[in-house]
Amino acid sequence: MTAASAPGKVILFGEHAVVSGAAAIGGAIDLRARVSVEDMPGRTQIDAFNLTLQGFSFDLISGQLNSAEAENAIRYISAVLKEFRADDLRVSVESSIPTASGLGSSAAIVVAAIAALNSHMDLGLSQKEIASKAHEIERAVQHGLGSPTDTALATYGGHCLVAGGVKPIDLPCLDLVVGCTGLPHDTRTEVERVQSLRRRRPEIVGPVFQAIGAVSSEAVSVMREHRLDELGELMNINHGLLEALGVGTRELCELVYAARGAGRALGAKITGAGGGGCMIALPRPDGKAALMVALEQARGRAFIVRTGCEGVRVETST
Amino acid sequence: MTAASAPGKVILFGEHAVVSGAAAIGGAIDLRARVSVEDMPGRTQIDAFNLTLQGFSFDLISGQLNSAEAENAIRYISAVLKEFRADDLRVSVESSIPTASGLGSSAAIVVAAIAALNSHMDLGLSQKEIASKAHEIERAVQHGLGSPTDTALATYGGHCLVAGGVKPIDLPCLDLVVGCTGLPHDTRTEVERVQSLRRRRPEIVGPVFQAIGAVSSEAVSVMREHRLDELGELMNINHGLLEALGVGTRELCELVYAARGAGRALGAKITGAGGGGCMIALPRPDGKAALMVALEQARGRAFIVRTGCEGVRVETST
Repeated sequence: MTAASAPGKVILFGEHAVVSGAAAIGGAIDLRARVSVEDMPGRTQIDAFNLTLQGFSFDLISGQLNSAEAENAIRYISAVLKEFRADDLRVSVESSIPTASGLGSSAAIVVAAIAALNSHMDLGLSQKEIASKAHEIERAVQHGLGSPTDTALATYGGHCLVAGGVKPIDLPCLDLVVGCTGLPHDTRTEVERVQSLRRRRPEIVGPVFQAIGAVSSEAVSVMREHRLDELGELMNINHGLLEALGVGTRELCELVYAARGAGRALGAKITGAGGGGCMIALPRPDGKAALMVALEQARGRAFIVRTGCEGVRVETST
Repeated sequence: MTAASAPGKVILFGEHAVVSGAAAIGGAIDLRARVSVEDMPGRTQIDAFNLTLQGFSFDLISGQLNSAEAENAIRYISAVLKEFRADDLRVSVESSIPTASGLGSSAAIVVAAIAALNSHMDLGLSQKEIASKAHEIERAVQHGLGSPTDTALATYGGHCLVAGGVKPIDLPCLDLVVGCTGLPHDTRTEVERVQSLRRRRPEIVGPVFQAIGAVSSEAVSVMREHRLDELGELMNINHGLLEALGVGTRELCELVYAARGAGRALGAKITGAGGGGCMIALPRPDGKAALMVALEQARGRAFIVRTGCEGVRVETST
């Protein structure tokens, strides 16, 4: 059996504006998807655990399945198996990354699956090939959508700067609290909403994107110099700019203000496409517990993550 | 006895950015301050009603007074009396404009007081002179602060475009719902907060101001053509940009999302300096009542206003 794991991600700064060329910063987080592969002559089966409350099992022959989140994972794994003409396998997926939350769960699953197959079948793929194959497969499954950022972070870990292409960037780790609304969102819908606004109101959205790009640029030096107060301020600014682009929701806003309230967080913002999904908050030193309570009280699901974690790794090979 | 009344105002678009030269739009509203003047040989007394729950009376000789809001009104009236060397008068102030809410209550009081004195003492001031005198007095009382927009709208009524100077602009009336947090705010503090951000982060705040100016410009044609859906969208964009500038609060945000929720409003935004005070929402046709309920349920005080109302007028002269 061979297993590989890959991390989820958060977008720290620059979502949406990055689609039109502004800079964005993402970080791999210490929540991982793990895919293991073992031979099972005569049939191919995909099992998934912890994607939903109950795990599920999918038989490629009978086609039985019961959850939308699981269905999604299956679609990615199936695409990976098809791409590498792999069969007679039992593939198991486990993930602690909330799905449909903008935390890169599908990219992590695809990257971990490719890395597991790579090792199991001796495909000899480089990290770069894993990242680019994964992006290709994500795009195919999502009919043209899918950000190279997610697959790059799942592969290389650490942080990346997206500006034109995706480049690794050396930044210190950050402890963040993620607050999930629990409301799924559709990245494609949100991206299309913002791009439609840009087409209709270029005179307004142009400068908003420019401001978001400037936030990302300033965030790089602020993070490097560990000026956390200023980093929080930049998060707050970026949040308002995302609100201006129309991707805020009442629930996200409640979590953001719950985090900022009573000085619990240095800053808070939507992370990812918005319209549901998650927000991130930068806790004061030793303020994580109070922050988690505040988010839970505002009806969010909260967890602590560290950014800048390790990328894909082969875990066992027997 | 002579009485004059003058309207409060809302800023529809462009607050804060206007300080740095971007365009803003304001409208006089149908809430008014009324000041009456009558001779009272031997002493000067100021009475105020409806500024707070209980009216109050202030005797310039004994100096007795009990409310911060009343104290504020007294300061303006006293400055007007001093400016015109008026004494031996009983001055009564009534106002339906919530104070310290960014709705122009002090400008309305000053303008109405000058207009009442103008008529009572036959000073022969033109409208233009009333507006500029009122602005001068506001600035003096507020130690250099005080926007010419408030005094211009209180004097001329209608709508105005602020871009460099304050110019009347012909726009159709709008029915809005105002939601007040009931939390007082200090315009000076909020303006200073934003201007300090601009000095520290010109690369970010510059484009934000530019975007706000573009919102104001597009709002003019959208209002003229009565495209209310688009006007709501512009309000939402402007709200996000104000959030980005750091003048949002949890309570304002709750009112804004309560208004937008379930399609009650076409758009909603902070009005004025933020940091407390009020928001405005653009109701769907016939949706005012539902919108008021939603705002009250979100712990706001809500009332309907119409923009573009009449400016200062002398009401009685006996």
